Amino acid sequence: MLKTGKIYVVGLGPGDRLHMSERARRAILDSEAVVGYKTYIHLIEDLLEGKEVIDSGMRKEVERCNLTLDKALEGKNVSIISSGDAGVYGMAGIMLEVVNEKKVQVEIEVIPGITAANAAASVLGAPMMHDFAVISLSDLLTDWELIKKRIECASIGDFVVALYNPKSKGRVHQIEEAREIMLKHKLPNTPVGIVRNAKRSGEEVVITDLENMLNHSIDMFTVVIIGNAKTYVKNGKMITPRGYHL
Amino acid sequence: MLKTGKIYVVGLGPGDRLHMSERARRAILDSEAVVGYKTYIHLIEDLLEGKEVIDSGMRKEVERCNLTLDKALEGKNVSIISSGDAGVYGMAGIMLEVVNEKKVQVEIEVIPGITAANAAASVLGAPMMHDFAVISLSDLLTDWELIKKRIECASIGDFVVALYNPKSKGRVHQIEEAREIMLKHKLPNTPVGIVRNAKRSGEEVVITDLENMLNHSIDMFTVVIIGNAKTYVKNGKMITPRGYHL
Repeated sequence: MLKTGKIYVVGLGPGDRLHMSERARRAILDSEAVVGYKTYIHLIEDLLEGKEVIDSGMRKEVERCNLTLDKALEGKNVSIISSGDAGVYGMAGIMLEVVNEKKVQVEIEVIPGITAANAAASVLGAPMMHDFAVISLSDLLTDWELIKKRIECASIGDFVVALYNPKSKGRVHQIEEAREIMLKHKLPNTPVGIVRNAKRSGEEVVITDLENMLNHSIDMFTVVIIGNAKTYVKNGKMITPRGYHL
Repeated sequence: MLKTGKIYVVGLGPGDRLHMSERARRAILDSEAVVGYKTYIHLIEDLLEGKEVIDSGMRKEVERCNLTLDKALEGKNVSIISSGDAGVYGMAGIMLEVVNEKKVQVEIEVIPGITAANAAASVLGAPMMHDFAVISLSDLLTDWELIKKRIECASIGDFVVALYNPKSKGRVHQIEEAREIMLKHKLPNTPVGIVRNAKRSGEEVVITDLENMLNHSIDMFTVVIIGNAKTYVKNGKMITPRGYHL
């Protein structure tokens, strides 16, 4: 009987090679096939020599997992890649689900990466030093009412909030509604950090506030971090104090 | 006038060198002095040859930052290290605050790392695939009433919840109260993952549920991840589905 290959679900981190883990690099090098959304494949092109590369467009997540499993069942080690952390809105969950669904025995290793919120926070200063909530504004797979409820709960709880997928070409009103909900519980001058392409080529940073955040460019490559009641901006850095006495 | 050195605030990731970023490694190598809590200094001992090493005990965070700044003002590049991500309950915030307080001009680079919640999630499978809240149960610096409110809000919002600092020798009732609050809004059979020393030597993993979570060992080296209403356990992995149709 053919020995199955191993599946690596790899989080690449923010994109710049310097912020990828050594474990991720080795997993890719150990793979005979690499599967991923083409934008992410592009980030690791120098590691792909001699490998079978299967890139695909957006929203083909289930297809990508099926292709990955096929390769493993052919006896090949295979990496399926996500940017950031594969376990945060990435490929880890759906890959495990596809393998469970097919009722096959394949070894799977999930390799964590630096997720976008942490990368963006490091660029802004230290806005996530205290309790925080991570919320995706994409309502492709999640009921918008539930997302709104979560924004409300996170605001009432005075969490620092990191918003993923804040806006796309076809999805523009969610960030506006999110801001309105937050303004019911957070002050208009609450600091807001907007980071595009955090810790990779093309990085752009804006520090503004809830009142003015919509006056800045926000898209799918952007993470938006909204402070808690104690967050402040000083010397161009956004800081949420943990409460130490200086 | 003496040129000041650069301060690197470095997140080491979970502890195993394989999960540290190349940027973190280079920052430490570029430093003439390295400052940190002794347990973390231990993790990078092989990088420290020829460097001035300043280790200190727990709860000396402000002192550590002052020492770091002193070294930079002497003209030395210096790394101050945190495990995980320096921007999540780590040294990034307090370091920026100390430099602001002293009104000096020093270049500071915050280098992100893989935080404990992401490392623990990767070990458990894929429990944080959907919106999540990160909450520290340490009430050393934060009012316990505020922490309880956040646990309540995160539970009402059906967030996946990652608890940091869940329990220590002197602090045992917080995890019990946290569980009671969550049980008001989450079912007793909600999956709970308990990971000790995630992605480093001595890793231990338990998957249980809210009803039974207190029957397992929990301490300061542990992260506890509580699922949302859709989280399930299959083939020994904890999975929070994002909502894809298989």
